[in-house]
Amino acid sequence: MGIGSEKTVTGWAARDASGVLSPYTYTLRNTGPEDVVIKVLYCGICHTDIHQTKNHLGMSNYPMVPGHEVVGEVVEVGSEVKRFTVGETVGAGCIVGSCRECGPCKSNIEQYCNKRIWSYNDVYTDGNPTQGGFASAMIVDHKFVVKIPAGLAPEQAAPLLCAGVTVYSPLKHFGLAESGLRGGILGLGGVGHMGVKIAKAMGHHVTVISSSDKKRTEAMEHLGADGYLVSSDEAAMAGALDSLDYIIDTVPVFHPLEPYLSLLKVHGKLILMGVINQPLQFVSPMVMLGRKTISGSFIGSIEETQEMLEFCEKRGLTSMIEMVKMEGVNEALERLERNDVRYRFVIDVAGSQLDA
Amino acid sequence: MGIGSEKTVTGWAARDASGVLSPYTYTLRNTGPEDVVIKVLYCGICHTDIHQTKNHLGMSNYPMVPGHEVVGEVVEVGSEVKRFTVGETVGAGCIVGSCRECGPCKSNIEQYCNKRIWSYNDVYTDGNPTQGGFASAMIVDHKFVVKIPAGLAPEQAAPLLCAGVTVYSPLKHFGLAESGLRGGILGLGGVGHMGVKIAKAMGHHVTVISSSDKKRTEAMEHLGADGYLVSSDEAAMAGALDSLDYIIDTVPVFHPLEPYLSLLKVHGKLILMGVINQPLQFVSPMVMLGRKTISGSFIGSIEETQEMLEFCEKRGLTSMIEMVKMEGVNEALERLERNDVRYRFVIDVAGSQLDA
Repeated sequence: MGIGSEKTVTGWAARDASGVLSPYTYTLRNTGPEDVVIKVLYCGICHTDIHQTKNHLGMSNYPMVPGHEVVGEVVEVGSEVKRFTVGETVGAGCIVGSCRECGPCKSNIEQYCNKRIWSYNDVYTDGNPTQGGFASAMIVDHKFVVKIPAGLAPEQAAPLLCAGVTVYSPLKHFGLAESGLRGGILGLGGVGHMGVKIAKAMGHHVTVISSSDKKRTEAMEHLGADGYLVSSDEAAMAGALDSLDYIIDTVPVFHPLEPYLSLLKVHGKLILMGVINQPLQFVSPMVMLGRKTISGSFIGSIEETQEMLEFCEKRGLTSMIEMVKMEGVNEALERLERNDVRYRFVIDVAGSQLDA
Repeated sequence: MGIGSEKTVTGWAARDASGVLSPYTYTLRNTGPEDVVIKVLYCGICHTDIHQTKNHLGMSNYPMVPGHEVVGEVVEVGSEVKRFTVGETVGAGCIVGSCRECGPCKSNIEQYCNKRIWSYNDVYTDGNPTQGGFASAMIVDHKFVVKIPAGLAPEQAAPLLCAGVTVYSPLKHFGLAESGLRGGILGLGGVGHMGVKIAKAMGHHVTVISSSDKKRTEAMEHLGADGYLVSSDEAAMAGALDSLDYIIDTVPVFHPLEPYLSLLKVHGKLILMGVINQPLQFVSPMVMLGRKTISGSFIGSIEETQEMLEFCEKRGLTSMIEMVKMEGVNEALERLERNDVRYRFVIDVAGSQLDA
């Protein structure tokens, strides 16, 4: 890649709604004054990548190089970039641009900017498609780049950039970061497992709530949860009424809300993380009697991401990952689709044969 | 009424689910050491009174004397009562008892105690039915009695004890009492009109949202609202997207939530006030993209009620009421049922012929 010139890179792209990825060569823009050029080392695989590559939301454009949990090495910086230097380990997440003028942008919560630009399957300010981290390199505006603290292993840091901050952001925002709280994590996938770890690191008593007993040992022994509730076990659910300060609800498909609202104490908070286009339902007395709230949250800001990374370094918090090569990405996507992963796939991008 | 002895009183009671009220004579308990005997002067009529007298919730017991917006004069106090003296003007609301031992009770939010005792259609600690304020007198535990500030006209104060605090409590609790906010009041009935007045007194820019244009003049000219939105006017609704910090939703029947969630800014709050047993619906991205919350609130605590009364006195805030005699209560209930009232009926109990 020449300095300041267009760069030819190889990524793995989906070509259609089959979602099958294969090598794809494309060109990155010239490095602008505020750009950081990142050689991708690792990239996590998020459930959203499946929705996008398979066009579940009806908004996919191909070829599409997915990947928004990107950890890499700075190989070039634009003339105006002061925060980053060549050789540093950095991260990029779901968003690579925003308007910078709206209320959310001015409040540094650019994830809620209506003109945010996604890391992939979006159009950049220059009119070209954005492409993600399943590729040898990315160019990202420095405003949307975070530093990976030295105490975090880069492959461990990858899932923090989406799954980690997705949990951290609402706990901070909704006043749920103090120690001593009792939290529930509904669903133990990629986001759920980070939920347990981050909530435990905050000093919470954490109960995993799951549809079956299958993950009990995993949750209690490997992830350090304090309790485990099977949602179909009526006696156990009844015994846990009014016991939780919050529930992080990571279930990405339609489900009833009332059983979980019942588990909340007065002033308890149900925080939705799953994009579910089938309407969720509740009767109003379930929130009125106890001033409970149903809310949601969407990833986190760059500022929150940086803060979360430092929090994880300080607490020695790691994600549980399964490393794969790009050559195995299609199999990994298939396994992720049936939740057969503990708990996050991370692609060893730099160690893969990308043009295989 | 003899001091310390049982007291025979006359109220107007429903006898069955027709909800028709007629004179009813019954006995109040002996005045206990912590009791306050209240000669009822005025009592507001709340929409809940209709639900109860007509057994809409399937939990009604008859004969039932409704009324939970009670203003009266202290005529006797128990030996342990220090806060009240004979001759004082006091109020009683929806709740006349609670367990005093649970988390909510210990936090002075006894309205969320699971063992709260309703002012009527409930059973008191002595095993007798509770009866409300459509009667010559009530006996109420002093913990559940508030002082009516001297600067408030007693008949004006009546609707504050339910409708007023119902709006005041969530605005305080959810951090929405500071000046300069932009609020929406959905539905302009008894609670809604108090919502406009209290929100205006807090220094908010207040938009009334209604299903028709009928109440525009009323809202803007008589209640002092700053804006008026007709929910079926698509252009006006689209023009108001992302504009409100909160919406107080007073609609007591099923309605879509999404049009109103769309009106909220990032971090905006939709606060439900209507008991609706048909499930309400929303898709999760509506709350996720903007960390919006759907919540609810239920009346207010005794502490909040006292604070709200003092707030109203200080701001010179009054309710808009239509005074009726008890002899006209059945007609008033009928008119209320078809929303034909501006905005709250108050019964002049002391000025009525109760045993007519």
